[in-house]
Amino acid sequence: MRTDCHVCRSEGLSARSQVLVSGGGRELQATLFQVEDDGQLALDEVGLSETAWEMLGIAEGAEARVTHAPAIESLASVRRRIYGNRLDAPALTGIVQDVVAGRYTDVHLAAFLTASAALPLDENETADLTGAMIAVGDRLQWDASVVVDKHCVGGLPGNRTTPIVVAIVASNGLVMPKTSSRAITSPAGTADTMETLAPVDLDIATLKRVVETEGGCIAWGGAVHLSPADDIFVRVERELDVDTEGQLIASVLSKKISAGSTHVVIDIPVGPTAKVRSEDAASHLATRITAVASRFGLATRCLQTDGSQPIGRGIGPALEAFDVLAVLRNSPGAPDDLRRRAAVLAGAALEIGGKAESGKGFALALETLADGRAWKKFEAICEAQGGMRAPPKAIHVHPLTAPHTGRVAQINNRKLSRLAKLAGAPTAKAAGIHMEVRLGDEINRGQPLLHIHAETTGELAYALDYAARTGDIIDLET
Amino acid sequence: MRTDCHVCRSEGLSARSQVLVSGGGRELQATLFQVEDDGQLALDEVGLSETAWEMLGIAEGAEARVTHAPAIESLASVRRRIYGNRLDAPALTGIVQDVVAGRYTDVHLAAFLTASAALPLDENETADLTGAMIAVGDRLQWDASVVVDKHCVGGLPGNRTTPIVVAIVASNGLVMPKTSSRAITSPAGTADTMETLAPVDLDIATLKRVVETEGGCIAWGGAVHLSPADDIFVRVERELDVDTEGQLIASVLSKKISAGSTHVVIDIPVGPTAKVRSEDAASHLATRITAVASRFGLATRCLQTDGSQPIGRGIGPALEAFDVLAVLRNSPGAPDDLRRRAAVLAGAALEIGGKAESGKGFALALETLADGRAWKKFEAICEAQGGMRAPPKAIHVHPLTAPHTGRVAQINNRKLSRLAKLAGAPTAKAAGIHMEVRLGDEINRGQPLLHIHAETTGELAYALDYAARTGDIIDLET
Repeated sequence: MRTDCHVCRSEGLSARSQVLVSGGGRELQATLFQVEDDGQLALDEVGLSETAWEMLGIAEGAEARVTHAPAIESLASVRRRIYGNRLDAPALTGIVQDVVAGRYTDVHLAAFLTASAALPLDENETADLTGAMIAVGDRLQWDASVVVDKHCVGGLPGNRTTPIVVAIVASNGLVMPKTSSRAITSPAGTADTMETLAPVDLDIATLKRVVETEGGCIAWGGAVHLSPADDIFVRVERELDVDTEGQLIASVLSKKISAGSTHVVIDIPVGPTAKVRSEDAASHLATRITAVASRFGLATRCLQTDGSQPIGRGIGPALEAFDVLAVLRNSPGAPDDLRRRAAVLAGAALEIGGKAESGKGFALALETLADGRAWKKFEAICEAQGGMRAPPKAIHVHPLTAPHTGRVAQINNRKLSRLAKLAGAPTAKAAGIHMEVRLGDEINRGQPLLHIHAETTGELAYALDYAARTGDIIDLET
Repeated sequence: MRTDCHVCRSEGLSARSQVLVSGGGRELQATLFQVEDDGQLALDEVGLSETAWEMLGIAEGAEARVTHAPAIESLASVRRRIYGNRLDAPALTGIVQDVVAGRYTDVHLAAFLTASAALPLDENETADLTGAMIAVGDRLQWDASVVVDKHCVGGLPGNRTTPIVVAIVASNGLVMPKTSSRAITSPAGTADTMETLAPVDLDIATLKRVVETEGGCIAWGGAVHLSPADDIFVRVERELDVDTEGQLIASVLSKKISAGSTHVVIDIPVGPTAKVRSEDAASHLATRITAVASRFGLATRCLQTDGSQPIGRGIGPALEAFDVLAVLRNSPGAPDDLRRRAAVLAGAALEIGGKAESGKGFALALETLADGRAWKKFEAICEAQGGMRAPPKAIHVHPLTAPHTGRVAQINNRKLSRLAKLAGAPTAKAAGIHMEVRLGDEINRGQPLLHIHAETTGELAYALDYAARTGDIIDLET
């Protein structure tokens, strides 16, 4: 709106004021941006973002009313929490409802998340927050007494076990309606990888049909409305780079419970550049997850796994898809670390789901892969989701070679992720990295450490420039 | 920038990414807003805000480079503080430097401020933060061994003592270079009121000349670059509505010390709708202020004052100016509460500045008002600042009358402020409220409680509408 318009003047609205915009019988809260008289906006006009046009559902020229946004009552709870008071279920519900209604600014969101890091959420608060996050979203229901799911805490590049786990578990008669995210800061999310193999934008009806027919799916979670508060919290946590146990647990469990799961396997990679850095921290997290989950009748199995280096060879949507295909098809040279890790997780799911005795799940999972049942199931799921397709291949492939002879001593997961993103992943589906070495490998000078895959020469140049500037993506010990 | 441009794609920039924009030999950090192809922006173009154009000093068509903003090292200190670790001077300096350089987003700012509320800043941290805030701004220097200042903690409508205090103090030979703020959420700041009487946009050279000639000034602080971090923190604290003692002290003291003050009188209004609500809280605040100030060689005198109702009769820039003029000119009917409060504060300044013995300052201040010296000094200061002028008067004046007979039992300061703003203050200089009653007054039905002053009929209507909808601006007890 114009700084000099009568509404801004009389309401005392200034830049970044929170305003309530009403029009077409709907209303939304927005942040006000002000413009001087630039010839584009008349004194009685208001310009809206694309999102606001959509939410109000009005056309250009329609009448809109702009006033101060009403006071947000739940902010009193946030302030109480800042000053060290614990919050109960009604208070947390009030906060989550206002968050999902878009009433919180970044300042408010950051304050709530910081307060729950400064004085960590206790078990009651974590459970109440989880419950509140479930309540504000949709909830899926299934005609099965056992519905399994898996989750990985903290990303490891290339850790694309999900499609393999779903195929193994569904082959053995369990229901596993898996929804996954797209990459936000990583070079690929499960949904990005899966999309190179089959459609993943399933609405709830299609998703239900696929699961009813095949026992499992691998869909994008964004198309269904599960735990919408989580997406908002996660964005701010990422900007803060503050990860708290309570928020993490509420995030994971609210998604799983909303998806209708009864049993969940949780993969906790532990390593120096992973999210969880010690076995003690992993144990503590596992205990708390299990305790909160049990309040909602959700059975969990937490597994500590190796988080010291990437899994498989590909990093990037299509490159990870090729690894997944190789394991499912029992191709010669399929990455064994990915196969074993998927079998461990699938084995745990088979055990808690009652399809394998304790200690026998891993063997059953490997067997399901070896005899081709998992591959057949995966093909069937892809068909049900809209048809299987071949992942794209990059035009530009360029090696990064060893500057000297030595043993691979350390691999920096974060720098690898950045390199893959500069090469174009995840937007460019074929782009990313193909790893040629693993920790402990003895490498000669000039041998490739990895290959960069890019769809354009510009993106290849970006990646190569970064690699040249950054020395220690892969450390060689002489 | 366009979502589909090669920089966004290859750098992995998404909406609200923090970016570094370089051009014309300068650089700035900015938040990225993305647009689809809307015919306005080409793939290799970037649109800048007015502020960004100014900061870079480049012209349309110039070349600019956009990359990811570099990592902000001081955020590690913010995270440590969130997790309960105290910060030392170098850490706080790093934070304040990055804040002033515009590298912190709202999320980062809110996290820092929330963390210092959840675990309150201790005396060392408060002092170190104060020091850091002083170091990043300009600092004024004066050829005087005693430089006095005053500050009011937490606004009370109409509490416009500053011009009177400066006139009294300067009349008695003390140096008082007063810089004040414009209103942000209130109906008038001291700078807004003073601007109706004389120019206040003084640059440092003019400000120095005025003070050298007259011993005092009443200028807008925004034109000088004192404690720039404070303005940023204050905006976020206001949005959070969280006020912490440590931040308050660092804010006030960094401004005063940057202004070159050696002695400061601090007015702490205490009342049910004031910022400080109990005498205990006021005492604690006073002790801490004095302790931190002494580390910087700054002498302070903290005064607890009555914060239960507005001071004077006017609320709004010009209406408050008329009260100030009435007191300075000894006009019949000048508001006695404003006169006495200004004399109390000026008296304390005269005492700590060595111009009155202990206990004699108040009398000297009243005398300086009574014999016309303060008025002469005020006229001289106005002339030196660019010439005295008459405050404007509103065209539309409308009474708000008592709905029934009764005694004035309570006055809601916040609702009065809102009413004055709806009437157009502070943008409309003549707009605001003229109070006709004070606490304890016996009022007959139909008698005016206050008059609303407005420059336009639209703004008058806004104010009247609010008054009609909101019952308890002034409570009458029967």
